[in-house]
Amino acid sequence: MAVESSESNKNSIKPDLVVVGSVAIDTIETPYDKRESILGGSASFSCAGASFFTQVGMVGVVGSDFPESYTDLYRRFNIDLEGLQTVEGETFRWSGVYRKNMDERDTLSTDLNVFADFSPELPTAYRSSPYLFLGNIGPDLQMHVLDQMDDTRFVVLDTMDLWIENAREDLRKVIGRVDLLTLNESEARNLTGEHSLPAAAAKLLELGPRYVLIKKGEHGSMLYSENGVFILPAYPLEVVNDPTGAGDAFAGGFMGSLTEMGRTDDEAMRIAIMHGSVVASFAVEAFSLERLENISRDDIENRVNRFREMVRIP
Amino acid sequence: MAVESSESNKNSIKPDLVVVGSVAIDTIETPYDKRESILGGSASFSCAGASFFTQVGMVGVVGSDFPESYTDLYRRFNIDLEGLQTVEGETFRWSGVYRKNMDERDTLSTDLNVFADFSPELPTAYRSSPYLFLGNIGPDLQMHVLDQMDDTRFVVLDTMDLWIENAREDLRKVIGRVDLLTLNESEARNLTGEHSLPAAAAKLLELGPRYVLIKKGEHGSMLYSENGVFILPAYPLEVVNDPTGAGDAFAGGFMGSLTEMGRTDDEAMRIAIMHGSVVASFAVEAFSLERLENISRDDIENRVNRFREMVRIP
Repeated sequence: MAVESSESNKNSIKPDLVVVGSVAIDTIETPYDKRESILGGSASFSCAGASFFTQVGMVGVVGSDFPESYTDLYRRFNIDLEGLQTVEGETFRWSGVYRKNMDERDTLSTDLNVFADFSPELPTAYRSSPYLFLGNIGPDLQMHVLDQMDDTRFVVLDTMDLWIENAREDLRKVIGRVDLLTLNESEARNLTGEHSLPAAAAKLLELGPRYVLIKKGEHGSMLYSENGVFILPAYPLEVVNDPTGAGDAFAGGFMGSLTEMGRTDDEAMRIAIMHGSVVASFAVEAFSLERLENISRDDIENRVNRFREMVRIP
Repeated sequence: MAVESSESNKNSIKPDLVVVGSVAIDTIETPYDKRESILGGSASFSCAGASFFTQVGMVGVVGSDFPESYTDLYRRFNIDLEGLQTVEGETFRWSGVYRKNMDERDTLSTDLNVFADFSPELPTAYRSSPYLFLGNIGPDLQMHVLDQMDDTRFVVLDTMDLWIENAREDLRKVIGRVDLLTLNESEARNLTGEHSLPAAAAKLLELGPRYVLIKKGEHGSMLYSENGVFILPAYPLEVVNDPTGAGDAFAGGFMGSLTEMGRTDDEAMRIAIMHGSVVASFAVEAFSLERLENISRDDIENRVNRFREMVRIP
């Protein structure tokens, strides 16, 4: 396969956090607006979200049609691109329409293109990174990435219904090798057959991870571990312009914050979840990475401080 | 009208909190169980919930068929019943069925019976109570109760879709006279026409109340005021056996706690909301008042302490 890294043979950077996921070109319609061929994909949102906190390296694949302007945008986020392959063909494309109230969406088309044959290969410099985020790709690919890492300190895995339904055994295997599993409410129920979230979380912890982080969208998130549960509502927003990538931005902010702290205890998890929630709250205020592109770490911390006050118990 | 108070001519008690609402006899079917002719109604759940914190007086109406065992149960909660009228006829009866997962229910029958002609009359001793909870009854009746009070310190009003749709003007008038309006998420949207909760809350605050408390069921609650918002998730439960009365138990625990503290500032609201959430979490663990009947104030505080840890930000 003719693979070339976007940044090969330059001075290799060892990122503190490696993120693997999809890079997509999206066409999105909401009840209020429509945007064509904008930058999307789980790796885009996760890496951008993490970039406020740490040096992140992206592992993914794009086609030869991938616009230079998007690569430039990644660079402005200071995302290392040595792990981003460019292969002959078209980039993964997705289009969808959000229904009224933005709480449901219909997929219009999914063209995997070069993503169909994605085989993630990690640059040498990436293999000794301490933190790894296995974004939402097939569990066999997630396992392949994990096998290339030398000695990770903390691995987080995201998944989705597609893999729960079509690759359940592979998924269970890779879940058994990670430190934290993140998935949304309905996926947790689907994977365990338990409607009650505490019961679902207990079953997921039995698969091996120390932590299970359940995302509930506008209703926040819950972190389960043997020490109990941490519950954080979502940061309340007046306006959501595009929910696409919210979960990925959340995971990116979470992983970035965790990497920055260099700790993986319960207290660090709570702070990182708050950071992830706030990064996600910014992400959904605009299409693609447009909002994240225009905020600073200070904006994040200011919102974190307001959020702290909103959930403070006297 | 032949009205007699259940406790007339005895030593009148001046309750610290007066609660007006419905008393009903319910028949409820869940996916797992069915119970006939059990004690229900907003006043039952609210008064029981408040009783852990303060001396509460119930204002409501029952028929001559109302079982003595239920009056005895009220007395075991130390609820003052001088404001509970008994009139010739049948008590309000409601029956409903919960669907799978308990998140929706269908009403099978509603027989208002003596509740149809309910005209709440407050015992003299109740009129100078500092705290008043106007539970979910018609806004004209809520206004009639408010008019009988001498000098309340803090009035909370609950409502529902029925009144929003059929008595909107009366409802807006009485909302203009209370300190805190509580309603659920969909009702807040319905009453204001705003989908965004912050926008809906802003419009509701413009009607007059200092606080708007939005109940989101299993997703917790939000308190809006000119000082901002306080957000508390729901206490997570493994098992919910009957969600009936959850909102009323929440309101009762909230009002009871507020009354006990004797304060109406933002900090007191936050503590009272936590108490309300915990009381509601107990209430839904069994049918009717069965769970509340078997817990103590210590059980509530123990759960509050576990809850505090679940939402603590380092």
